[in-house]
Amino acid sequence: MAGFNDFVKRYGRQIEEELVSFLRVKAEGLSDLRRKRVVEEIARFTLGGGKRIRPSLMILGYAGSKGVIDSRIVKASISIELIHSYLLMHDDVMDRDEIRRNRPTVWKVFKDLHEELYGGEDATHYGYSMAIIAGDLAAAYAIEALLQSGFEYDVVSRAIEYMQYVIEMTGYGQILDMTLEKEPLSSVKEEDVLEVHRLKTAIYTIEGPLRIGGILARADQALLDAYSKYAIPVGIAFQLQDDILGVFGDEAVVGKPVDSDIKEGKRTLLVIKAWERATSEQRRILESVLGNRMATKEDVEAVRDIIRSTGALDYVKDLALKLASEGASAIEMADVSSDVKEILKDLARVVVERVK
Amino acid sequence: MAGFNDFVKRYGRQIEEELVSFLRVKAEGLSDLRRKRVVEEIARFTLGGGKRIRPSLMILGYAGSKGVIDSRIVKASISIELIHSYLLMHDDVMDRDEIRRNRPTVWKVFKDLHEELYGGEDATHYGYSMAIIAGDLAAAYAIEALLQSGFEYDVVSRAIEYMQYVIEMTGYGQILDMTLEKEPLSSVKEEDVLEVHRLKTAIYTIEGPLRIGGILARADQALLDAYSKYAIPVGIAFQLQDDILGVFGDEAVVGKPVDSDIKEGKRTLLVIKAWERATSEQRRILESVLGNRMATKEDVEAVRDIIRSTGALDYVKDLALKLASEGASAIEMADVSSDVKEILKDLARVVVERVK
Repeated sequence: MAGFNDFVKRYGRQIEEELVSFLRVKAEGLSDLRRKRVVEEIARFTLGGGKRIRPSLMILGYAGSKGVIDSRIVKASISIELIHSYLLMHDDVMDRDEIRRNRPTVWKVFKDLHEELYGGEDATHYGYSMAIIAGDLAAAYAIEALLQSGFEYDVVSRAIEYMQYVIEMTGYGQILDMTLEKEPLSSVKEEDVLEVHRLKTAIYTIEGPLRIGGILARADQALLDAYSKYAIPVGIAFQLQDDILGVFGDEAVVGKPVDSDIKEGKRTLLVIKAWERATSEQRRILESVLGNRMATKEDVEAVRDIIRSTGALDYVKDLALKLASEGASAIEMADVSSDVKEILKDLARVVVERVK
Repeated sequence: MAGFNDFVKRYGRQIEEELVSFLRVKAEGLSDLRRKRVVEEIARFTLGGGKRIRPSLMILGYAGSKGVIDSRIVKASISIELIHSYLLMHDDVMDRDEIRRNRPTVWKVFKDLHEELYGGEDATHYGYSMAIIAGDLAAAYAIEALLQSGFEYDVVSRAIEYMQYVIEMTGYGQILDMTLEKEPLSSVKEEDVLEVHRLKTAIYTIEGPLRIGGILARADQALLDAYSKYAIPVGIAFQLQDDILGVFGDEAVVGKPVDSDIKEGKRTLLVIKAWERATSEQRRILESVLGNRMATKEDVEAVRDIIRSTGALDYVKDLALKLASEGASAIEMADVSSDVKEILKDLARVVVERVK
C-alpha cells in the first residue's frame, strides 16, 4: 500500500462510518424539526462528498510514529473532517458559492427553504445565518469528537491546542486572501500569495493533520518538526498545481470550469508572476480581463498566452517541483515508519503530477 | 461582598487585564496590517464594553467549590468572554445590527473600511466575511486561553467539552429564535419561547459559566447539578425580565429604545401570551403592529395595552418571580461555600428586580 490514493481509498470507508455514526447521534438527539433540519444539513454536507484527505493524513501522522493504526485514531480523525465542513460552510457564505460537490451549498439550501416557507424577502440573509450557525455547530462537534475518541487527556489537550492553531492560521490566510483580491495587481507580491498558500493550504491541509496525528501518537519533537518540514513545501506545491489546473487543466478531467479563476480575478502566483514580467500592453490586457465575469473565450485565452509567454507558467511549475522534492527529502531523512514514509513520498509526487 | 454586582465590579478589572494581555500578544504576533487590523478589531470589540457577567459567574462557580479564587481561574475566565465576543460578532451579522455598546459592530467597521479603501460595491459582504472570520478566530482564542490557564489536562479537557456543549445549545437556540421570528404568531407556543430562553440565555449565560468554573475546581456531581438547578430557572427569569424592560422599561434608564422589540416583532412570552388571550380585534392589532418598523407611537402603545389588559404582563412577571425563587431555593440547599451562596442568591433577586 505504497500509494497515497490507495491509502485514502482503504481508510476512507472507516472514516465515513465514524462520521455517519457521530452525526446520526447528533440528529437523533433533536426532536423538533426546526433544529433537526440544520443538523441533518450538516450531515448531508459532510457525508455528501470530500476526499477525506485530511483525516487520512491525520491517521498517517499517527501511524508514522506509532507504527500501527487503531480504532481510536480513526475515531479522532473525523474531527478534522468536521473542521473542514465548518470552514467550508463559512467559506461558501463569504464566496457566495451556490454549488459545491455537485449539490447546493448550505446557505443556498436554507435560502431555498426560506423562499418556500416564508417567501423571498430576506431569504438570502436567512440562508447566510443558518450556514454561519451550522458552521459553528460543526466546529463544536469537531472538538467533541476528538475528546470522545478515547485518547488520554494530556495528548487530547495538546491535539486540541494544535487544532486551534490551525484554525487560527487558516483564518489569517482567509483574511489575507479576501483582502488581496480587492487590491490592484501591482500591489500584490509573490510573498503575499505564497503566504496565503502556506496558511490556507499547507498548514490547514497537510501540516495540521499530520502533526495532530503525531501528537496523539506521542511522537517526539524531531518527528513533529519533520512533518512540518515535509508538509509546508508539499502543501504549497499542492496549491500551485491547483492553480495551474484551474487555468490550464482539462475541464472534463478537472471537473470544474477552467476559466473561473481568471474571471474571478483570483490572485494566483501565475497571475502575479505574469504581471511582474508583462509589457505594458500585456498588463493592460491582464487588468481588463482578470476579475471580469463577462470576459470572452478569446480574452481568457489571451491571459493564458501571457502567463505562458512571460514564463510565469514555467516559473510556477518549476517552483512546485522544487518544493515537492524539498518536502520529499525532508521526510526521507525523518525517523518515521517505513510504510508511512513511502506513502508521504508518493503524495509529494502526486501533488505535482496530478491532472485533477 | 454579598452582592453580585459588587463581585463583578471587584473582579471585572482583573478579568479586563487578562483579556488585554492575551489579546495584545495576538495582535503583536502579526506583522502585516491586513491581518493585524482584524485582530485589533477583535480586541477593540471585546475590550470596548460588556459587563463581564459570564467570567464572573465562572469564577463564582469555581469559588463555590474550591472556597478560594486563584490566578488560574481568573486567567481561564477570559475564555468565556472570548466565546461571548465570538457569538456576538456572528449574531450582529445575522441581525444586521450596526451598533453595539455604542460603537459600530465588527461587520460595520469592515464595511466602512471597504468603502474607504475599495469602494462601495461588495462592501457589506466584505464586512460580513471579516466578521465571520473574526468570530471564528475569537472561538479559537477562547480555547487557547483555557488551555493556557494552568489547569491540569483532565479538568481542562472536561471544561472544554462542556464549553462545546454550551456553544452547541446556544446555536440550537439561535436557530430556533431566528426561525420562530419567521412563523405566524399563532403557531409559536409558550414552550418554544421558553426553550429559546433556556438555550440562549440560561445555559449560555448562567449554567455554562457556573459549571465550567465548577469543573475546573473539581466540584462533585452534586454541586454541578445544584448549579444547573439554580441556573436554568434564574436564567429564564433573567430573560423574561429583559423582555419586560424591552417593552415597559424606562428608555433613559434601560439605555436603548423600548419600542424596538415590538417593531422587530420579537417572539417574547409577553407577546405570545397576549396573543393566546387576545380577542380577535386585539389579535388584528397585534398582527399589524408587531414586526412593523413603521409603527407609530400610538400603535406601540396599543400593543402595550393589550399585553397589560390580557394579563400577559402579570403572567410573565409572576413566572419570572417564581423561577427566580425556585433557583434561589436550589442554591440554598446546595453544598456551596457560604459567601458564593449569598452572591448567587443576590443574583436571583437582582435578575427580577433590575430596571436596566
